[in-house]
Amino acid sequence: MIIAYKGTRYCGWQIQPNGDTIQARVMEAIKGITGEEVTVYASGRTDAGVHAAGQVVSFFTHSSIPDERFPFALNTKLPADIRVLKAETVSWDFHPRYSAHQKTYCYRLYTDPMISPFYDQVAWQVSTPFEQNHRLDMEAMKKAAEAFKGQHDFKGFMSTGSTIKDTVREIYDMEVRSNAQTMDGTILTEISVTGNGFLYNMVRIMAGTLVEVGSHRLDASMLPSIIASGDRDRAGITAPAKGLMLMEVRY
Amino acid sequence: MIIAYKGTRYCGWQIQPNGDTIQARVMEAIKGITGEEVTVYASGRTDAGVHAAGQVVSFFTHSSIPDERFPFALNTKLPADIRVLKAETVSWDFHPRYSAHQKTYCYRLYTDPMISPFYDQVAWQVSTPFEQNHRLDMEAMKKAAEAFKGQHDFKGFMSTGSTIKDTVREIYDMEVRSNAQTMDGTILTEISVTGNGFLYNMVRIMAGTLVEVGSHRLDASMLPSIIASGDRDRAGITAPAKGLMLMEVRY
Repeated sequence: MIIAYKGTRYCGWQIQPNGDTIQARVMEAIKGITGEEVTVYASGRTDAGVHAAGQVVSFFTHSSIPDERFPFALNTKLPADIRVLKAETVSWDFHPRYSAHQKTYCYRLYTDPMISPFYDQVAWQVSTPFEQNHRLDMEAMKKAAEAFKGQHDFKGFMSTGSTIKDTVREIYDMEVRSNAQTMDGTILTEISVTGNGFLYNMVRIMAGTLVEVGSHRLDASMLPSIIASGDRDRAGITAPAKGLMLMEVRY
Repeated sequence: MIIAYKGTRYCGWQIQPNGDTIQARVMEAIKGITGEEVTVYASGRTDAGVHAAGQVVSFFTHSSIPDERFPFALNTKLPADIRVLKAETVSWDFHPRYSAHQKTYCYRLYTDPMISPFYDQVAWQVSTPFEQNHRLDMEAMKKAAEAFKGQHDFKGFMSTGSTIKDTVREIYDMEVRSNAQTMDGTILTEISVTGNGFLYNMVRIMAGTLVEVGSHRLDASMLPSIIASGDRDRAGITAPAKGLMLMEVRY
């Protein structure tokens, strides 16, 4: 199934003993419709506060409900901030995580000095140095984004504590754009990135690093050596979870 | 002051004995900063669930806090869904409502069969007739919007129960547009309307009527006679509050 959710109210995707999670909500909804206690697998865990427009999940069922009825049926059991968009039967060997070929994330931020009541839960409000007058250097950020493209060892763009051994990933596309078509006139900076996979917090660290570049605290030309160094301390901060959205997973 | 707010959690602008209101929150914040118990006047009341990107409000104060410090000071006392964007000293005879020359509202809706977790609180999800395949006829809506422009007696576009006597208003501009630059790919239909003033629920009834046209339940060519009839029953339904946003007030 393809599902969308606003992560604000949840302790992330993965079920846990204390705290409301998206996985638990989806599993409860399936039980409510089919009577079956299933485990629902996702293309990846999303952290607390992270959103999804196109998360992919799977589960096994003996239900005779037609695929196309599942979204409507499950949505009657789900809160409005979690929606099943599409359902289809897949082969037994399909796994939303291990079968995935590429993922696209979008990170959103803005530099207005005031919090936006409409984007506060879905974008990061960035403070820029005084001399930049509430603007980021978009050209520098675009140049820096080019450095991420291709295959690299992204060891330095992973939160410490992760036990992953293979830290080589390939970035197929990365775009930094400005979006002024917003509800209240907020100008959103959108960082869209597509790759064959992402390390823990990798997109958020990339976003934090691009903000350093856009704030002229880091020069875009330094990005290749920062990536090559594999040194987490040379990259920028881990941008807050609320600006991150999983857009699409491809198989 | 110019203020923005997401109306979802509030019982509208106007203070009331039971229920959280934006007016009460702003008055409490002013008291917290200046110590003064003031009445805050707005360019107009907004109903429960209605939003504002550019509401204009005023109050009297003896405070020596400079104008440009007021937004920052008040925002420390306000919840994140209410923000003071700007403050300036005005003459004693300024009144946000009576001095206003024109107002711009935006009404947002979408026709996706699934609720959007990201736009559910700020846009109306419209069900379209089966044969329209989840689309509204945008060209018909644009044509119908033309009929509202100019000076008309909008008696039929006012909720019954209002005691207003003069129901003539002038619409300076009205635009129906499609906005696909959204966070999750939802295609928003935005109805933007500017006039010298609006009757109670007028924009919401206009939006409800345009949806009838877009759904082919009403022909755009009928709009002039529906307006001229002054008959509330011939116009469309009052569209839900949550899709409405006060964008700008001009003086």
